[in-house]
Amino acid sequence: MPSTNLTFADRDAHRAWLATQAALPAGFRVGCSSFEFMPREAPKLARMTLTLIALDAPTTSFAALFTRNAFPGAPILIGRKRLAEPALGAVIINNKISNVCAPGGVETSERICAAVGQQLGLPATQILPSSTGVIGWTLPADPIIHAVPATIAALAGGSVLPAAEGIVTTDLYPKVRRATVDGGSIVGIAKGAGMIEPNLATMLVYILTDIAVPRAELRQMLARAADASFNAISVDSDTSTSDTVVALSSGRVPFNDWGVFERGLHQVCRDLAEDIVRNGEGVRHVVRVTVRNAASLGLARALGKAVVNGPLFKCAVAGNDPNVGRLIQAIGKYVGAHAAGINLAKLSARMGGIEIFANGVFQLDPAKELALVAHMKQAELYASVPSNDGVFAAPINYPPHERAVELEIDLGNGAASAAVLGGDLTHEYVSENADYRS
Amino acid sequence: MPSTNLTFADRDAHRAWLATQAALPAGFRVGCSSFEFMPREAPKLARMTLTLIALDAPTTSFAALFTRNAFPGAPILIGRKRLAEPALGAVIINNKISNVCAPGGVETSERICAAVGQQLGLPATQILPSSTGVIGWTLPADPIIHAVPATIAALAGGSVLPAAEGIVTTDLYPKVRRATVDGGSIVGIAKGAGMIEPNLATMLVYILTDIAVPRAELRQMLARAADASFNAISVDSDTSTSDTVVALSSGRVPFNDWGVFERGLHQVCRDLAEDIVRNGEGVRHVVRVTVRNAASLGLARALGKAVVNGPLFKCAVAGNDPNVGRLIQAIGKYVGAHAAGINLAKLSARMGGIEIFANGVFQLDPAKELALVAHMKQAELYASVPSNDGVFAAPINYPPHERAVELEIDLGNGAASAAVLGGDLTHEYVSENADYRS
Repeated sequence: MPSTNLTFADRDAHRAWLATQAALPAGFRVGCSSFEFMPREAPKLARMTLTLIALDAPTTSFAALFTRNAFPGAPILIGRKRLAEPALGAVIINNKISNVCAPGGVETSERICAAVGQQLGLPATQILPSSTGVIGWTLPADPIIHAVPATIAALAGGSVLPAAEGIVTTDLYPKVRRATVDGGSIVGIAKGAGMIEPNLATMLVYILTDIAVPRAELRQMLARAADASFNAISVDSDTSTSDTVVALSSGRVPFNDWGVFERGLHQVCRDLAEDIVRNGEGVRHVVRVTVRNAASLGLARALGKAVVNGPLFKCAVAGNDPNVGRLIQAIGKYVGAHAAGINLAKLSARMGGIEIFANGVFQLDPAKELALVAHMKQAELYASVPSNDGVFAAPINYPPHERAVELEIDLGNGAASAAVLGGDLTHEYVSENADYRS
Repeated sequence: MPSTNLTFADRDAHRAWLATQAALPAGFRVGCSSFEFMPREAPKLARMTLTLIALDAPTTSFAALFTRNAFPGAPILIGRKRLAEPALGAVIINNKISNVCAPGGVETSERICAAVGQQLGLPATQILPSSTGVIGWTLPADPIIHAVPATIAALAGGSVLPAAEGIVTTDLYPKVRRATVDGGSIVGIAKGAGMIEPNLATMLVYILTDIAVPRAELRQMLARAADASFNAISVDSDTSTSDTVVALSSGRVPFNDWGVFERGLHQVCRDLAEDIVRNGEGVRHVVRVTVRNAASLGLARALGKAVVNGPLFKCAVAGNDPNVGRLIQAIGKYVGAHAAGINLAKLSARMGGIEIFANGVFQLDPAKELALVAHMKQAELYASVPSNDGVFAAPINYPPHERAVELEIDLGNGAASAAVLGGDLTHEYVSENADYRS
């Protein structure tokens, strides 16, 4: 469940609420600048935004989690080395090109870190690079380095919103969440809309806090929070080569209570993870699958993922069609292929609180069908409207509500439970991804 | 590769070719009848076709493979028992409702078998039932039993085409393939367009031969042929609850050469599997991934499946967009999550014969981009045309050609290879599945 139950009438109302979330913790500044450039592989003018998150003084207290995709981007390879550095002073982020398996990719990212560090008076090893966008293209080093002075000149305290807006690609709106704890605050921003089934971390998430959490504890708490949030979502089952979650502490506010801090961190991560799904590419319904009484946490989460990744069930949700046969198919597919010994005899399932399966058989009738359709329509974020050429795009750029299609699966033979978030599969997803680069 | 390289100008040309494939082996007759009925769960008139495949005399030589989905349909549960029977005399198939986890499903299917058996002068245990269609609905026993006499009256030898047409649901066209071997023939028909990632067998496939292959050998050869054909395809990664492959021998032609028969059986299975993908729901491009020099057959096939099931790559193919970054992402996702020890340093990849990845980096330039686009367009089965209301449907009902988007992945550190077939992800798939039941 989200920690809030918000509804927004329009984009202005959403932006006004974002402003209430965006106050930067003490000790941080953010800045952005944008420019046009010509990609090497497909020469057609493209636009890139460079975003800088800078600490007023380098910190020893930083944590980061990276994708487990076996073809990680150059910034991931560098970031893993940065974890061993004594301190970190800034994060430099570009969108449009993700710098994955591009010739000379690591060298290019290091050159950019060196340029940023030089102008901030820091060694390159204290700069963490991040990139997101097209996989396979080469990062344009010279235009980026040329834009560094303007980015540094734009640095300002007060609000994280410029950074939340600077890092987006196909996102419909910026994502900012905060928790106020212990006399300080935790503020997180996230970028991500497609290629989202994080394996250890999600696309790009930056969490800033002024609370003085020591490095070791921050890393442990971040890993636990990411596992219960970003690792429990899937927009489209694709795991990015660039997934990154970074947490930085400026250490300005004394650290008192681990429990309070960790609860705040979990809340910010869960809310951001849900925002990522709600803003997922083409997502018109968020689907929450709560699996209960499973033999293990791994099984509970795997069954949840099997449901939210089943393309036929996802299409049915898009059409407000309670085709719950596809839900049972998705569970049976996973168990048949990966957990053949599991006893499903006690499985029961509910959708919107309505029992649809029990004692090995479906529990359906025309009245339930109508109630299930009503539940799905109530969770729809927007109606699908094709343009004249048949291309579908989301008509809104703010999240109208936080409701979800609620599925409950009770296995009845264990004590583990997990909640997994996913989205439907829509024309908007296909339109967005059939020719993303053009 | 298909055993043919056919092109068809229109539906009539395709049907004329089907007729050349459809001659029934000696000892078989097929018949169909259709009727309307009111489903219990969502009362709205629906149409069902009942198809009967009958042997002139019951045979001891029959084989069947069934889905590994953990929620198998009632006909699957019955079919597994039939495998132990001494003989089989007929197969009774309905479309529209798949009879999965419906109250009293097994009893209903057995009642239908008994009715068919009684009118054919056979025990119910010699009748194999098959059902395909909506999961969760109840099979209408009385209308089906009422239609049995008309179905039996329609039984005729000569052509398998009425059965190939009778078993379809969302298929665009019937699928028939044959091999002539050893003085006899092997003729197969297939039904399947969505919920296709078979795990041991595919949706509904019936293979008829007049060659007198003993039961044990037929079962072994069918398992091997299905593993290399139906188990190596995926339309949408969803594994049906009803997948069934049946092989029946009428024993009319003496069996001479196992090698010749098995090659013919493999050819029929491979061609039908490729037909199923080519006719997959919304499929506008068939994608063939050939993985070479892998450490194991399992790894080779898993990587091929990871590519053809990656929704972002599938969308790129739909748009004739050579976004090969998503191809590498899909491989890296699988290896990162399931095969973390694999060395990918020697991986190279080609698309349409053009090298796109080698030595750890992409090998791309604008000229290659144009050549890749040309390869994808050449493999496109039809152009996408939305109607006025934004609903997309395939404008053709015949397979215009047998070309595919050809991907080659060379892992460079093993001796195993596998070819996997899949399709793109299109507006037509979403349109077809967002409200399939209405």
